[in-house]
Amino acid sequence: MSEFDLIIENAIVVTADADNRVIEKGGVTVSNGRIAHVLDQNALEAMKDRAGRVVDGSGHILMPGLINTHCHAGDSLFRGLVENLPLEAWLQTVWKAEAAILDPETTRLGSVVGFAEQLLSGVTTVMDMFWYPRQTVEAARMVGLRVATGGIFFDPPGMDKKTAETRPNDAERFIADFAEADDVFVATMPHGAYTVSPDNLRLAKDIAEAHGALYHVHAAETRAEQADVQNRYGRSVIRHLDHLGLLDERTVLAHCVHLDDEEIDILARTGASAVHNPVSNLKLGSGIARVPDLLDAGVRVTLGTDGAISGNDLDMWLALRLAAMLHKGATMDAEAVTTAQALAMATRDGATALQAGDRIGTLEPGKFADMVLVDVQRAHAVPLFEPVTHLVYSTNKSDIAHVFLAGEQVVRDGQLTRLDLAGPIAEVQAMAPQIAASIA
Amino acid sequence: MSEFDLIIENAIVVTADADNRVIEKGGVTVSNGRIAHVLDQNALEAMKDRAGRVVDGSGHILMPGLINTHCHAGDSLFRGLVENLPLEAWLQTVWKAEAAILDPETTRLGSVVGFAEQLLSGVTTVMDMFWYPRQTVEAARMVGLRVATGGIFFDPPGMDKKTAETRPNDAERFIADFAEADDVFVATMPHGAYTVSPDNLRLAKDIAEAHGALYHVHAAETRAEQADVQNRYGRSVIRHLDHLGLLDERTVLAHCVHLDDEEIDILARTGASAVHNPVSNLKLGSGIARVPDLLDAGVRVTLGTDGAISGNDLDMWLALRLAAMLHKGATMDAEAVTTAQALAMATRDGATALQAGDRIGTLEPGKFADMVLVDVQRAHAVPLFEPVTHLVYSTNKSDIAHVFLAGEQVVRDGQLTRLDLAGPIAEVQAMAPQIAASIA
Ligand SMILES: [Zn+2]
Ligand SMILES: [Zn+2]
Repeated sequence: MSEFDLIIENAIVVTADADNRVIEKGGVTVSNGRIAHVLDQNALEAMKDRAGRVVDGSGHILMPGLINTHCHAGDSLFRGLVENLPLEAWLQTVWKAEAAILDPETTRLGSVVGFAEQLLSGVTTVMDMFWYPRQTVEAARMVGLRVATGGIFFDPPGMDKKTAETRPNDAERFIADFAEADDVFVATMPHGAYTVSPDNLRLAKDIAEAHGALYHVHAAETRAEQADVQNRYGRSVIRHLDHLGLLDERTVLAHCVHLDDEEIDILARTGASAVHNPVSNLKLGSGIARVPDLLDAGVRVTLGTDGAISGNDLDMWLALRLAAMLHKGATMDAEAVTTAQALAMATRDGATALQAGDRIGTLEPGKFADMVLVDVQRAHAVPLFEPVTHLVYSTNKSDIAHVFLAGEQVVRDGQLTRLDLAGPIAEVQAMAPQIAASIA
Repeated sequence: MSEFDLIIENAIVVTADADNRVIEKGGVTVSNGRIAHVLDQNALEAMKDRAGRVVDGSGHILMPGLINTHCHAGDSLFRGLVENLPLEAWLQTVWKAEAAILDPETTRLGSVVGFAEQLLSGVTTVMDMFWYPRQTVEAARMVGLRVATGGIFFDPPGMDKKTAETRPNDAERFIADFAEADDVFVATMPHGAYTVSPDNLRLAKDIAEAHGALYHVHAAETRAEQADVQNRYGRSVIRHLDHLGLLDERTVLAHCVHLDDEEIDILARTGASAVHNPVSNLKLGSGIARVPDLLDAGVRVTLGTDGAISGNDLDMWLALRLAAMLHKGATMDAEAVTTAQALAMATRDGATALQAGDRIGTLEPGKFADMVLVDVQRAHAVPLFEPVTHLVYSTNKSDIAHVFLAGEQVVRDGQLTRLDLAGPIAEVQAMAPQIAASIA
């Protein structure tokens, strides 16, 4: 037995830690799935003969796996199906397709493809809201990444053919079954304040709180949603959620596009996380979130892709680049949102939002060895001056060469190691006519 | 001798023609570097034995090569060097680096890397403004794509160590030398209304007009530029250019971010093209161009990457996706800018702007066989419902498998065929310390 299962050396190391520490040449040691050391090359050299495997990271950046804090991986089945509609009309069509097509089997298939896309791009943890959370976990394990998920709450008849009555029990059982798993961060997931009653929003929170679980809701995505919630409950979405006592450090709010100053202060005060989903927000015409203002107010902003049915892919690198770039253009301030802030959204702050900052999100001793090697020797990637700038603005998802989950190599040379993807890809493509017919 | 040099079959064909014709399964025949037929698979079958080479396009979209109408490929040497500055402060630093580093050799090297990045992503024609246009042409030929370029006009001492006096002669000689080349679209290229006097702007136009050449200028990129030109000449940038008689169908204006309604009307009336550069405009904090209004007014909008020194890469697929998506978010209208309009910017309308609509920009008989095969069988790319939606929203630059220029295969399985890129990539990376020192 070697002292270290794995050493990665000769890489440019971007730790993404709170000090934004970068090592020009170095790497990590891994023992029992955890990072043991993060060291420069000189220090590593002395340890190489104590490792079972040494990976040469020359010409690569070594960084923590990305954390996507808002996704619906199973919706990859519907990529590009519903186009050119604002959220509300779009959702009606999406739900029609989901109701016709989704069952546990198809959900697992769609989720496998959605998680595969993400793991191949260096995402090692995904917060995923979908109709069949047990199949979401199965798919994540087939591919090789961590998920934050749990029972969905939705008052109308659901696309899983369930009604609101059985959801609390399902949610409790999910938490009981997965609370101890290293690779699952348990949650309850009410869809939104416009689809879940105040009582059921509260019930979902109570179940989560009884187990210290996460709480994930769509919130303040569109103007129409704001108007709807205001009309029904006399309060804006964030005020409504706050009034119900649902906002705290374990609450993760997807979108948060339409906020006034006071709502931003509420998020800052309560510690709830706001997930920025720039691709989905642009494409659905939802608007541009006030990310610089959220950051200035001290709100924890994390990053998400939303589903491929709205954004048409699950590209965290695009989300990362837009997080840094979109707000510069929208506010005409070239200093809005720094590269360090953007990278933190996709790594460290995402981990904190999932209450897993002690286990994932940075390269630091004691954390899971969830790590990515990014090829920086391609035509679109030279020269390289500053690694964080490079990751935020020049890295393409296709630059991800190797990915490790708890030290296990789950992507090698751009291919999954646990699963042959050709089968699922062919299956999904074969379903396309049936899926298209579901909304015809 | 075969009747056809090449047949590509079994592909999903996106012609990008004026009718947006798509063939579900089919391909093209190529003879003497030109497209002879665009046909469905049944009709192609009968011709296969008359082809020297048959390429199977199964699982791929066949489409015309993309046209990037605003670039500075040589600036790839400075990717990521100058960050977090608005355009004016940014330009001063950029010029300092350019003056220290650029000569004909380094320009060719930077341009090779910049053109390689683009050809690998399926761009077959680039309008490129840079200090040494002859080296720009050399680099384009080494890599294997077409360029629109020509003598730069710039009144201050140039980064090419030239002064304004010799520029007209250089520009004339460039046009004389390359006017007959199939792979060069000749132009004069005054930098901007804030760096070139009215007399020199006019002189550059006269030289272009004497030869039917193109005219390419940065215009209305930032608020500061508008204020500067307004102060000096008493007119906004577009009105100033119009007043000088510089706007017509052969004029290509980069950026056009800050326009009032009347300026949009001027562009529509004169037939000048507006190049949308969403990545650069966002990242430099320049603003968000009024693309839906430009399209509504009938202005020809084309698409560009600008240089890697502002956008940090030269990704036309990102520009394409943003062209379709950004304005939906910025105007909160999910129907703003259709996928067909976005694709036309990057293909057909780009060709028209370069006065080459008879030769490039679509898959139609008689045009150069500048063609791309896009892999659509990857995890982020299945299922596929509608090919144009797929190209605009789901295609990543890494999906480009094969590229043909006038029927010659210039990219095979994601690798250049004319040039081994490892050398130039290593050379550029080796220059990085010297480049970094140039602005230290
Ligand atoms: Zn969502
Ligand atoms: Zn430019």
